[in-house]
Amino acid sequence: MTVDVYFTTPEADPAVVHESTVVVIDVVRATTSMVEALANGARSIFPTPSTEDAVRLAGSLGREDTLLCGERKGVKIEGFDLGNSPLEFTPDVVGDKRLVWTTTNGTTALAAVREAPRVLVGAFTNLSAVARAIRTDGRVVIQCAGRGNRFAMDDALCAGHLVRILMAGHAPDVEAEAHALNDAARASLALARAVAPSESFLGTTEAGRALSAIDLAGDLALCAQVDRHDVVPRLADQALTLDADDG
Amino acid sequence: MTVDVYFTTPEADPAVVHESTVVVIDVVRATTSMVEALANGARSIFPTPSTEDAVRLAGSLGREDTLLCGERKGVKIEGFDLGNSPLEFTPDVVGDKRLVWTTTNGTTALAAVREAPRVLVGAFTNLSAVARAIRTDGRVVIQCAGRGNRFAMDDALCAGHLVRILMAGHAPDVEAEAHALNDAARASLALARAVAPSESFLGTTEAGRALSAIDLAGDLALCAQVDRHDVVPRLADQALTLDADDG
Repeated sequence: MTVDVYFTTPEADPAVVHESTVVVIDVVRATTSMVEALANGARSIFPTPSTEDAVRLAGSLGREDTLLCGERKGVKIEGFDLGNSPLEFTPDVVGDKRLVWTTTNGTTALAAVREAPRVLVGAFTNLSAVARAIRTDGRVVIQCAGRGNRFAMDDALCAGHLVRILMAGHAPDVEAEAHALNDAARASLALARAVAPSESFLGTTEAGRALSAIDLAGDLALCAQVDRHDVVPRLADQALTLDADDG
Repeated sequence: MTVDVYFTTPEADPAVVHESTVVVIDVVRATTSMVEALANGARSIFPTPSTEDAVRLAGSLGREDTLLCGERKGVKIEGFDLGNSPLEFTPDVVGDKRLVWTTTNGTTALAAVREAPRVLVGAFTNLSAVARAIRTDGRVVIQCAGRGNRFAMDDALCAGHLVRILMAGHAPDVEAEAHALNDAARASLALARAVAPSESFLGTTEAGRALSAIDLAGDLALCAQVDRHDVVPRLADQALTLDADDG
């Protein structure tokens, strides 16, 4: 197996993406919230780059069983049903609903890799399930959403823990590691060996501090919860759903 | 002091760059070779984005005491006097010469941050000298050149060791660290705590393996040499020179 990590969306190499299973990670908070929503019974999620596209798509899907979700600068978009906080996506709210979803970084990252043969969504909350789902894949890309096309610690740390699980069967040999992993995957692995995910650590990251500034630091405890769910959202026909055997 | 690291050129935040001392790092090999050239007596270096600009500038400077230097895909540009290998820039070759220099990543990174109030060039070979030169600056940016706008391990590791030296006076407190460093600076610090620079480690990085593929792995021993020189190249009026007291 080879694993390439891209810390930002512009770093994605289309030639590699086209031949890889891609895991998109936006820990604080888009992919954490998407995992939460599907695990709690949402039927499907339509990631959408712009607010206008989201409103249009929700209209054409039928508003009665569709929820408009998303944020700009962390805050729920005016007129939308839900924001981007994982705590909002409870079973009673999202059960059997379609969710049309737009966020600053997460949905952009999903759009950037949508040509890949297999696109999955990962977070700390479904870390082991994702690792299991890709264990036998030959080429894996971990696409971090980043923050405004800059490096984001929360995503890199999660990418690193995923790399750590995938490499767990291998002896820690620096030469072998260099042949299996690109530079960014190796750097994220070094980070994961140094730092365990926790609410307090996420609170010190740029994304965590930005959330605190808008009084949403309460989301971080859930974002840091490893293996809260045993599901793997997968992108197919423009929508994220759970594979049948994840249900 | 605050320290922001940018792993790639597009990540540079112009507002931060405008208020910061910027250290540009391209360990394998542009900034290592530039440090070598100036330490070995070159009068000045004119970093130039394109081959055409380099040829034109060398013509206008006067070809008798000007050398054309640079690479594309690691290899010396046809018709140029020197490539981009630090081993080429010996005192007898570069003494009292002006060097016009174009490389794939390093000179692009220099161009991207040229509006900063102070732009310095760093590598492992002048690590402590750079740290000393910026110790009292309030805001520091470490701009890694990267590889084709992607994360590069060699640059991130050097950035991390520079951050490590700058933070050495401070107690290792995660909260304080988070207030002084951006996410990328913290990640590079974690990397530096895990990995010491060495020829063998550089040989496992993407840049190192690319050099090996064109039979230039011999450059890596010099690139990994910490504090080989006590000089700090500084950009002023489009040219890199040594500050008077570095001479």
